Amino acid sequence: MNLLALAGGVGGAKLADGLQRVVGENLSVVVNTGDDFQLHDLHIAPDLDTVMYTLAGIANRANGWGIEGDTYNNLEMISQYGGEDWFRLGDRDLATHLLRSQMLRGGYTLTHVTRNLSNALGVRANILPMCNEPVATIVNTNAGELAFQEYFVHRRWQPILKSYRFHGIDKARVTPEITNAIQNAHAIIFCPSNPFVSIEPILSVKGMRDLLKKSRAPKIAVSPIVGGEALKGPAAKMFQELGMEASAFQVAKLLRGTIDRFVLDRIDEAQAPLIKDLGMRVWVTDTVMRNEVGRERLAREICEWVTR
Amino acid sequence: MNLLALAGGVGGAKLADGLQRVVGENLSVVVNTGDDFQLHDLHIAPDLDTVMYTLAGIANRANGWGIEGDTYNNLEMISQYGGEDWFRLGDRDLATHLLRSQMLRGGYTLTHVTRNLSNALGVRANILPMCNEPVATIVNTNAGELAFQEYFVHRRWQPILKSYRFHGIDKARVTPEITNAIQNAHAIIFCPSNPFVSIEPILSVKGMRDLLKKSRAPKIAVSPIVGGEALKGPAAKMFQELGMEASAFQVAKLLRGTIDRFVLDRIDEAQAPLIKDLGMRVWVTDTVMRNEVGRERLAREICEWVTR
Repeated sequence: MNLLALAGGVGGAKLADGLQRVVGENLSVVVNTGDDFQLHDLHIAPDLDTVMYTLAGIANRANGWGIEGDTYNNLEMISQYGGEDWFRLGDRDLATHLLRSQMLRGGYTLTHVTRNLSNALGVRANILPMCNEPVATIVNTNAGELAFQEYFVHRRWQPILKSYRFHGIDKARVTPEITNAIQNAHAIIFCPSNPFVSIEPILSVKGMRDLLKKSRAPKIAVSPIVGGEALKGPAAKMFQELGMEASAFQVAKLLRGTIDRFVLDRIDEAQAPLIKDLGMRVWVTDTVMRNEVGRERLAREICEWVTR
Repeated sequence: MNLLALAGGVGGAKLADGLQRVVGENLSVVVNTGDDFQLHDLHIAPDLDTVMYTLAGIANRANGWGIEGDTYNNLEMISQYGGEDWFRLGDRDLATHLLRSQMLRGGYTLTHVTRNLSNALGVRANILPMCNEPVATIVNTNAGELAFQEYFVHRRWQPILKSYRFHGIDKARVTPEITNAIQNAHAIIFCPSNPFVSIEPILSVKGMRDLLKKSRAPKIAVSPIVGGEALKGPAAKMFQELGMEASAFQVAKLLRGTIDRFVLDRIDEAQAPLIKDLGMRVWVTDTVMRNEVGRERLAREICEWVTR
């Protein structure tokens, strides 16, 4: 069974890892690159790296991002020089950015570079950046317009969100690799990632919604909001600041017309009828992936549900 | 007393450190940049860094180059990716290259960048790259033409040298900072660096020989060849491969017309008359700098000799 997953950072990477454990190289993961940015003239792709490190089994277990056991001696020296040190680039992690940046300057696409790096790390799944063109998520907040990582990391998502946009999205195009992966997918899974700044940028790439609409594969979303809260990151806070209730039901409403199935946590079971009223089939289970076993269990349940 | 020193890597850096201990911020060091190269799209300047780290008191004590206590986790990850790992960039060291490269791309001169970085590390002396333009030493060997670091580090200077040239030197110009430092110098010291690939590139920068000729300050060379051998690196081997005897006297002959004083190691005292016959005054002393005390002692002797 060929699976296609859409993912942002840590939460999405965990389910992608579970899916890889179930179908191996038959998994393709389309990853948000709207939070990519430049630091020390290097191309940093936080979501791509989180997915790659997680699928390679080397992600930091406590944070979810970065490499397990990485050191920060470079960062310490950057600080000593008075350089930008708010984004914690680890010494090993930095190798990814150095090689990626060099290959991109050499004219290779981000898709090619990502395949090259993830192959070297032994990743079995096919990690696909959402596009090869640069896209930059810009958030408009009570502290003014901020580049995404400035908001997310430097200011720890504390400014109040008013709106957001994806700079450069008008020039972004679905890649041949993504087209092929969607056309061959037997199921399409929207991982539990931030609907506004992880899933929406992917869906906003020209050609993406059309390709998904044309696919007759079941399209399943796993809610990133559980019990009214995000397991990680600012998703719940964003719902509220954008004038919406932070709930699985709201996630389903945002994805109405795009997905036809919804995976709901037991704690939110009371919302199942509301989501069914949107025309979706609902599967209620434990969606919190506490470890690798939990990731694989959830992935296997989803696969069994869609093939039943 | 204002001192100007000309230096390459490890040996030159040691004497420069001694001179800084004697005159502090009244020292300017003109450093070879002919061995600069690009790695992972970063501008690496091995001699500049060796001088900077040595004058900052953070150089690796065993090697002479790199930073004391540095780690190599980035390099290990670069290797894992199958990237270029023959040049051992340390994790801390990498911060220098990242920030330098970024500033150079931002349009700053190498002179400006070097001042910025060395100030941040608390260096008192004024470290001046020999020029702001890129110059690349190319060696012609029995293994073909090689970029300098390819010859020096990757092949451990084992290929046999036939000739060498400084690519880009025709576009290199003496900087205003060097002009000023030479004009104000009360003594000019040629540190014990490789005469072919450290001192000659500096002297080959357009305007350099003229400025030195116009200066009435004493010009003193310290021999990098002691007892027929180089304390570090390929200097002695290069003399032989270029058809010359590896000796202090040969060093003096190469610099005839440029210097007027020569510091000779006791072990080579027999060559003093030959060097005097070249029209130079000679000072015989222990020139091997085994530690910081030795560096300062040699520097102090030189200062006292020229002011006597």
